[in-house]
Formats: sequence, C-alpha cells, structure tokens
Amino acid sequence: MFARSLRQLRRPILQQRWAHIGHAHANLRAVTSSDVEHFTSILSPSSVLSTLSPVSTASAELDSFNSDWMGKYRGRGNTVLKPRSTAEVARIVKYCNEHRIGIVPQGGNTGLVGGSIPVGAEGQEVVLNLGAMKDVRSFDPNSGILVADAGCVLESLSTYLEPHGYIMPLDLGAKGSCQIGGNVSTNAGGLRLLRYGSLHGSVLGLEVVLPDGTVLDQLSTLRKDNTGYDLKQLFIGAEGTLGIVTGVSILTPPASASINNVLLALPHFDNVVPLYRQVRRRLGEILSAFEFFDRQCYDLVLRHGQQPALPSDEVSDAQAFVLLETSGGHKEHDEAKLGELLEELLGAEGDAQLVTTGVLAQSQEQFNALWRLREGITESIGREGKAYKYDISIPVPKFKEAVDTVRERLRERGVLGKSPGGVSLVLGYGHVGDGNLHLNVVADSYTDEINDALEPFIFEMVSGYRGSVSAEHGIGSAKVDALKYSKGDASRLWMKKIKDLFDPNGIMNPGKVLPP
Amino acid sequence: MFARSLRQLRRPILQQRWAHIGHAHANLRAVTSSDVEHFTSILSPSSVLSTLSPVSTASAELDSFNSDWMGKYRGRGNTVLKPRSTAEVARIVKYCNEHRIGIVPQGGNTGLVGGSIPVGAEGQEVVLNLGAMKDVRSFDPNSGILVADAGCVLESLSTYLEPHGYIMPLDLGAKGSCQIGGNVSTNAGGLRLLRYGSLHGSVLGLEVVLPDGTVLDQLSTLRKDNTGYDLKQLFIGAEGTLGIVTGVSILTPPASASINNVLLALPHFDNVVPLYRQVRRRLGEILSAFEFFDRQCYDLVLRHGQQPALPSDEVSDAQAFVLLETSGGHKEHDEAKLGELLEELLGAEGDAQLVTTGVLAQSQEQFNALWRLREGITESIGREGKAYKYDISIPVPKFKEAVDTVRERLRERGVLGKSPGGVSLVLGYGHVGDGNLHLNVVADSYTDEINDALEPFIFEMVSGYRGSVSAEHGIGSAKVDALKYSKGDASRLWMKKIKDLFDPNGIMNPGKVLPP
Ligand SMILES: Cc1cc2nc3c(=O)[nH]c(=O)nc-3n(C[C@H](O)[C@H](O)[C@H](O)COP(=O)(O)OP(=O)(O)OC[C@H]3O[C@@H](n4cnc5c(N)ncnc54)[C@H](O)[C@@H]3O)c2cc1C
Ligand SMILES: Cc1cc2nc3c(=O)[nH]c(=O)nc-3n(C[C@H](O)[C@H](O)[C@H](O)COP(=O)(O)OP(=O)(O)OC[C@H]3O[C@@H](n4cnc5c(N)ncnc54)[C@H](O)[C@@H]3O)c2cc1C
Repeated sequence: MFARSLRQLRRPILQQRWAHIGHAHANLRAVTSSDVEHFTSILSPSSVLSTLSPVSTASAELDSFNSDWMGKYRGRGNTVLKPRSTAEVARIVKYCNEHRIGIVPQGGNTGLVGGSIPVGAEGQEVVLNLGAMKDVRSFDPNSGILVADAGCVLESLSTYLEPHGYIMPLDLGAKGSCQIGGNVSTNAGGLRLLRYGSLHGSVLGLEVVLPDGTVLDQLSTLRKDNTGYDLKQLFIGAEGTLGIVTGVSILTPPASASINNVLLALPHFDNVVPLYRQVRRRLGEILSAFEFFDRQCYDLVLRHGQQPALPSDEVSDAQAFVLLETSGGHKEHDEAKLGELLEELLGAEGDAQLVTTGVLAQSQEQFNALWRLREGITESIGREGKAYKYDISIPVPKFKEAVDTVRERLRERGVLGKSPGGVSLVLGYGHVGDGNLHLNVVADSYTDEINDALEPFIFEMVSGYRGSVSAEHGIGSAKVDALKYSKGDASRLWMKKIKDLFDPNGIMNPGKVLPP
Repeated sequence: MFARSLRQLRRPILQQRWAHIGHAHANLRAVTSSDVEHFTSILSPSSVLSTLSPVSTASAELDSFNSDWMGKYRGRGNTVLKPRSTAEVARIVKYCNEHRIGIVPQGGNTGLVGGSIPVGAEGQEVVLNLGAMKDVRSFDPNSGILVADAGCVLESLSTYLEPHGYIMPLDLGAKGSCQIGGNVSTNAGGLRLLRYGSLHGSVLGLEVVLPDGTVLDQLSTLRKDNTGYDLKQLFIGAEGTLGIVTGVSILTPPASASINNVLLALPHFDNVVPLYRQVRRRLGEILSAFEFFDRQCYDLVLRHGQQPALPSDEVSDAQAFVLLETSGGHKEHDEAKLGELLEELLGAEGDAQLVTTGVLAQSQEQFNALWRLREGITESIGREGKAYKYDISIPVPKFKEAVDTVRERLRERGVLGKSPGGVSLVLGYGHVGDGNLHLNVVADSYTDEINDALEPFIFEMVSGYRGSVSAEHGIGSAKVDALKYSKGDASRLWMKKIKDLFDPNGIMNPGKVLPP
C-alpha cells in the first residue's frame, strides 16, 4: 500500500522534471509480436530480447537496457536487439523505418544525459544494443590507425593497443563500459583531450547505417582525404539521432615512455590561470592533463576514503587543487622539466607564490593515488547524495564565480543547507585546459524546488558567459530544452533540417537532441 | 593570323581536358548592368569591379581574379565583388540567390584544382573575393583562441600571433597569399599537420553566410561544446560550395622555444618506413615534420639554384631524402634527443644502417636552407616545365611503387623522354607522417596524349590502394570526375543531398566538387 501511494505521488514529479520521458511519439507505433517475429528472422534467437511473444523474455531482463547509468531515467522499451554485424543492423533499421518503429542506439549505456534509453510510450522504440559487435577489424602498427566495430569497449581497445606501443587518444572514467561507437556518438572528451585533441580530429572514418537502412561506408584509413564533404563529421556527437555507427577508424598516438603526475595546492582560485600559463611554458609539449578541483571536492573524496596525499596542516588554507600530468618520450628529460617547474613554483615568494605546497608521485602506486583524488570525485558525489550535474564550458577565470553564483542562488532560494530536501554541497572541478567546468549540486533528494532554482538559472548564466550548456556530455533527452541557450535560431533550424534530411520518419533516437 | 588559328586549334583541346571550364550552368543567368547597379548600392564603389556599366572596369583588371595560381584555368567572370563585412556578404548572396547568379568565393586564389575561379559561361558567376575582410576580431592569450575575418592572410595571422608566443596550427608554401577562410574551405593540410592535426580538430567555430543569405553564427570560442550537430564541420573542406566562410575561430598552439631540422640521405626508398618508426620512437612528441623527397626532386632543386647541403660524393648513391623537424620547449633536451638519434643512425652497421649520411642545421640560415630544399620543389617543377600534379594518399610503403608505376606507364605509352611534347620527369615527394604523396609529372607542354596516359590510370591505381585521389588539395573543378575513385555511391549521393539542402538553386561555386 505504502509503496503504491508513493509511486503515485512521485510519477507526476518525475514527468514534470524529465519532460521527455514517457511521452508518446506521435509519428511512431509500438512494437508488436509480429515485429518481434520478424526480428527473430533477421537475428539469431539469443540476440532478441522481448517481453512480447514469441520471445517472451522476463521483463526484469530488460531492466538494465531501460535504465541509465545514474538510475535517473527509466525507459519503457519492450524489445532489445543485439545485432552481430553491420548487415544485421541495416536489415533491422530498414524494417523499423518502413514500419515506423523508433530505434535507440545503445553502447555501454554510460551516458549522463538520458540519451541511451527509450523515452517514448511503452514499446515505441527498440533498443539496438551494439555490445555484440566487438571485433577489432584491423590495426596498422606503422601508422597507428585502428579500425574497430562500434561495440568495442574503450578499455579493451587500450588493452589491445598496449603491446603495439600505442594508446587510445581518449580516456574517461567510464572506460570499462563505454564503447568506441558511444564515444564517437557523444563526441566524448575526457582526460586526454588537452593533449590529443577532439574526436573530430582523430576519427578518420566511420561506417554508419543510415535511418533508411543504407550503409554509408566512410571507413577510411587515410590520415588525409579531401574528396568532397566530410560527412562522417556529422555523426560525431549526433548521439544516435542521424544513424547508427557500426565501425570506427581512428588514429591512435604512440604510448609515452615516461608518465608523471603532480598534485598542487593553491591558496585561492585566482592562481589557477597564472599557474596554467606557467606550467604550459615550462612543460610545453609533455603536458598531458591539467585538472582543477575545488576545496569542497578535495574534502569530499577524502571523506569517502581516498588518501590525502598532502599533509593536512599544509593544505588547511588551500582553496583550490590542480592535478597535472606529463607524458613524454624521455624519462630524464621529463623529470628534469618537472623538477625545474617545481623548484620555480615552490621557491617563489610573495605575489609570485602561486602554490602552497605540492607532491610529485614517486611510484606507480602514488601516481594512481593522485589520479584517484580527481577521478574519485564523480563516485564520491554519488555516495554523498543525489547529484544535479552541469557540464559546462565557460572562460576559466569564471569557474569559481560560476560555482559561487549558483551556491548564492540556492541560499537565496532557501534550499542550501535545508534539511531534509536541501542542498548539502555545491562544487566545481574540471578540465582547465579545455575550459570545461563540472558544476555539481549535491542534495539528499531530487526535488522540483531545487530543480527550479537551478534551471534555467544555470543555463542563463552560461549563456551570459557565451559558454556551452553541455561541454562534453551532450544533449540527450535531459537538455533538449537547454539547447537554445548555446545555439542560436539559425543553428537550431539547420540542425533540424539535417535531422529531417537523414531521418524523415523520425525513427532514430526520437526525443533526443532536438525538440520534436 | 597565326595567333588566331592557334587559338582555334587549342580551344577544343582545352575544353576537352578541363571539361568544366566554359560550360554554361543551365540553372544560372549572366550578370547584367542592372545587377551591377544593385551591387554598387550594397558595396562601396571601390568594392565593385565589373566590365559592365555603370562601373565599366577595364577587363584586364579582372584578369587576376579569373586566372588561377598555376595559370592553368581561366574563368569568364565579368564582375568581382569585395565586401568589407559579413552583412555586405549576406546582402550580396541573398540577391544572387533570388536572381540565380552564381557566386565563386575567392580567398588568396592559390588553390591548385581550379576551384577559386569561375567555370561557367561568361558572366554567370560573380567572384566574391574576401580580401577586404582582413581584421583579427579577438585573441585570448590565455587559451590561444583566435577569431579572425576569413580574408586574413595566413602569414599575417602568424605575424600577429608572434609577440603573444603562439603560432598558427598550419603552415604551407602559399602562406603569403592564402587566406584563413580559403584554408578552412579547402581543409588545407600542409607542413604542421603531423604535429597539430587537421583543421577539423583545431577550428572551433565558423561564421558562414549560407546560400540563402542567412548568417550562420557558430563562431564559438569554446574548446568543447557538445550541443547538437557540429554543423561547422560541413564547411571545412566544402570548397565554397555550401556557403561563404566570413569568420573563423581557431585554437592556436604555443610557439616552441626550440626548433631544429635535419636532412638525411637514404640509400633506397625501402628505408623510409623503418626510419620513420625509429625517429618517432626517439623524438616522440617533439617531432614536427617528416618529409620525404626522391632523388629526382633533390637533383631538380639543385639544378634550380638551391645549395646542396650534403657533399655530392657522399650522396651519389642516395635514392631518397628525408627532412625532419623538431619543435620543443627545451633547447638542451631537444638537442640531446636529436644527438642520440643521429648517433644511433650514423653509427648503425649492415642492415641496420638506414641512412647514408645526414646534416643537422647549425644556424637559422642553415635551417632555412634545408627547408628550401623541400619547399623549393614546387617552384622548381614550375620552372622545369608544365606539371601534371597528383596529390594522393596511399600507404607509405607504396610511395615508390606508385611513382615507378606511373613512369613505366608513360614509357609504355611512348611519351617518356619524347621530344618535343614528352615527359621529362616523374617525381615523388610528400608528407610521410600523413601518408600523403605528391606525384608530379613534368613535361614540356600540356597534351592530351600525356593526359590520357595519366587519367584515369592514376585514379584507378589510387583506388586500388584504397587511397584518396585528393589528399589535401581538394576537388575543385579539376577532379570532379575523379571523386568516384575515392568515394562510393552512397557517399556521393549523400553529398549531393547536402548540397541540395543548403543550395537548392545551385548558386554557390557551381561546377565544383560535385557533378551538376
Ligand atoms: C564515471 C563516468 C565518467 C565519465 N566521464 C566522461 C568524460 O570524462 N568525458 C565525457 O565526454 N563523458 C564522460 N562520461 C559520459 C559517457 O561515458 C560518455 O558519454 C561515453 O562516450 C558514452 O559511451 P557509451 O558507449 O556508454 O554510450 P551510451 O551511453 O550507450 O550512449 C550515449 C549516446 O550515444 C548514442 N550511441 C551509443 N552508441 C551508438 C552507436 N554505435 N551509434 C549511434 N549512436 C550511439 C546513444 O543513443 C546515446 O544517445 C562519463 C560517464 C561516467 C559514468
Ligand atoms: C606554393 C603552394 C603551396 C601549397 N601548399 C599546400 C599545402 O602544403 N597543403 C595544402 O593543403 N594546400 C597547399 N596549397 C594549395 C592552397 O594554397 C590551399 O588550398 C589554400 O588553403 C587555399 O587558400 P586560398 O585562400 O588561396 O583559397 P582560394 O584558392 O582562393 O580558394 C580555394 C577554394 O576555397 C574556396 N574559398 C576560398 N575562400 C573561401 C571562403 N572564405 N568561403 C568559402 N569558400 C572559400 C574557393 O571557392 C575555392 O574553391 C599550396 C598552393 C601553392 C600555390
């Protein structure tokens, strides 16, 4: 009884907050048993999960495909398809297009904006999960060019490359689950972007199944190819709304012989930008990460079990922390460069003194421990409470101002520190080199009061900075209404024209990225 | 009389060879005096050149806008417009679209594929030259993000950045004339691609006037922005067929404190690939160029006045040359790395001996002299005769095979060494790091016989290697018929759909990139 009434209470709240969840797509129809029967004629029996006959999978088995990584969004798909080849994908897509059935392309399902799960009425979208397409197709150790199925897990590709002396040009916390096809479809950024650039530069080719079932083969293994429009670029970051990526050709950089990292404590945020300039000058081409996190983040990760790394009395006044990493080809040279930098930093006096203290990892173990202080933030936030996540691009000098402004806003609205139902923490961390701030608000529950205090407030703030409301996570279903804060009318109009050109029936990941 | 008959003789040959020159565009009409009058109401008087009244410019003044850099293509435009602002561009484009007048966007006019000059019947296209839009709009010395008018000359941007300690992420022989808008529109590669990647990665935003006169403002100064489709990517390399680039936002890398170069002589081509691997391993992140040229190229540039750099007796047997460059942040470290590499190379014996001899530049003067050996090739070819230029991507181990195959083909066809009207040289040089070979055939004149021996032979050969018929120069009007050798039916079909979506009236650089 109790459970029932709770659900009744909560449903409208959820519907209001996550507006695109559970709304019927007017143009699409739900999957029927006869569709499922057809799918079983295309795919092998074990590749079709459906609560409908003739397959009749237990609905619990579909749960993980219908829920996102954060447990925030819940889809109502009744059918999951796991094709094993591009040809199978093409046949499914063609059928769905002809029969007006929606398709949600799904990779590792680690996306953070509700893009990888169905949002329509029950059964209106099949989940097309790429997990069974996971072969490396080719690798050329001379050029470092890798061609892989879209379903290859990022970490498994790194492992594959290791003995060849190459690494993937991107790395992110979700590496153990996310897939290269998902990475491409979200234009994932992550920790190596500073050094190796964006996927728009390193992806050399794609194989894509278009919404009409055509296979667009642009799986080039050429570093340079100026023969006509670079169509593949459109699918990088399209979040599955223009087609299904089935194969990826990517340029991988050589592994570095020597990798080091350093944690620095700063007395206040204003020192971050001058520090970044000094570090870039000193370390130049070997700098591979420059990550910032604020005091709140540092205390939080320690509270959740990470080792401090710096003596607490030395950092008692520190308001900001920077984790920097170098990757270079020559151990002695790299260490000498780092040594000179640290000497300069720690020897400075008066106004020139940018850092309070710092530590250089002396072993692989310490190296990992330093990274855990930064990488542990996401997880610690999850343990601390419910997170309202904003992944924004704004000018670096404004990082702190943005966090403070949001905290002040919540205070004014009376939700900061309120218990229960209040916000406990407002914190900021991110990739300084990329101008990318992760602004997180942690509360003991998701409430409309907090949500209304945050949105569109934060989006308007970002727009005021001429920033991006989504630096790397994308739009998905969560940020459809926020798109207008970063993209003008003409841009949105032309996006819609592109969408209609490729997917006139609106079957491909409906309800994501663009308003219907 | 003689001149007349010669022209009569030659015209059909030219028309046959450069098929898209001088053919009327069925959908477009020629500019009239009343159009010119309208243009003078939009632009200041000095910004309109036209042989028509009321402007009545002498036709010789239009010559340079109607002829390409190689003097190979000749357009029949009667009107050149030089707008000074995006708003002016937009008004011109809107008018031309409504009146079905073609537009040829023109930057520095250094393109090598006949893309920047009119190809229609007389007066069917206005030349819209961006040269008067040449202001830097903003530069942020923290992030290195530069926003500039499309008409800024590449070299002038480099000069602008110098005191800030930044460089442009691209460099090419045409830097003194080519414009950033032209570079973006051709997705220019050049000498720094190995290090700083392609423009698809470093261009952060564009302002584009679309064929209907809409200004698409995507002039973002954000390194990361995943809010919807990355439309600007479509215009990178579209060669002016989808719209006019009026502004460019680009990420510029910090200048390197220390730059060195080395010329190496190799006994035979087969050593190039192992050498490249060894150099990458030793030099790692400081390697900024690895250029190859064959014996023919070396002899040619010396014949045209460059200094030898290496003692002729030491290189008498050398069949291949490599010019490598390093750019790093630390003089002593970089020199030590180079020293170790050279010691290893010159100390090797037997099969491990990849190079015959080499020289490390000891002064800025020597540094420039080494580069001139490589950069002087294009010019020397021009002085030697008429060049048939092929800019292809193929696997690096096939570079020599490709050059030899073409030479053999010309021998079989009886045109190698034939005099007059024969081929004197077949040579290869290019960017090894990018898999990009410049294959040049030098003859004493352009003849159908040579052309027919080369095309589609070379394109078929490239297609056999799964390569690209245009690695960096683009398609323009010269390679429209060759596009199919690198792009499949589906790709070409979707390119055409994109073209029709943006430019339904076909006014934007007609006759370029795609067949009508
Ligand atoms: C702990 C953690 C850390 C993270 N860190 C980062 C980070 O540093 N940087 C960053 O950018 N992101 C980060 N993310 C977000 C996420 O991991 C990335 O967006 C990732 O690229 C998603 O890959 P996936 O395979 O899980 O895709 P999914 O979540 O399955 O899908 C994401 C989107 O792409 C579409 N899609 C997936 N596969 C395909 C395909 N083959 N063809 C077409 N469309 C497809 C989906 O429809 C959906 O819209 C993080 C997530 C977690 C959980
Ligand atoms: C000596 C020499 C060396 C070269 N080396 C290289 C090299 O190493 N790598 C390389 O890639 N290329 C090279 N090129 C080719 C050429 O310089 C490049 O393609 C250059 O990017 C063209 O720039 P531009 O401003 O001269 O453009 P243009 O020649 O004027 O135009 C080129 C094309 O772009 C279009 N266009 C120009 N401006 C705009 C605009 N603002 N908006 C829309 N469309 C526009 C034109 O319509 C045309 O189709 C070289 C050329 C020469 C002469």
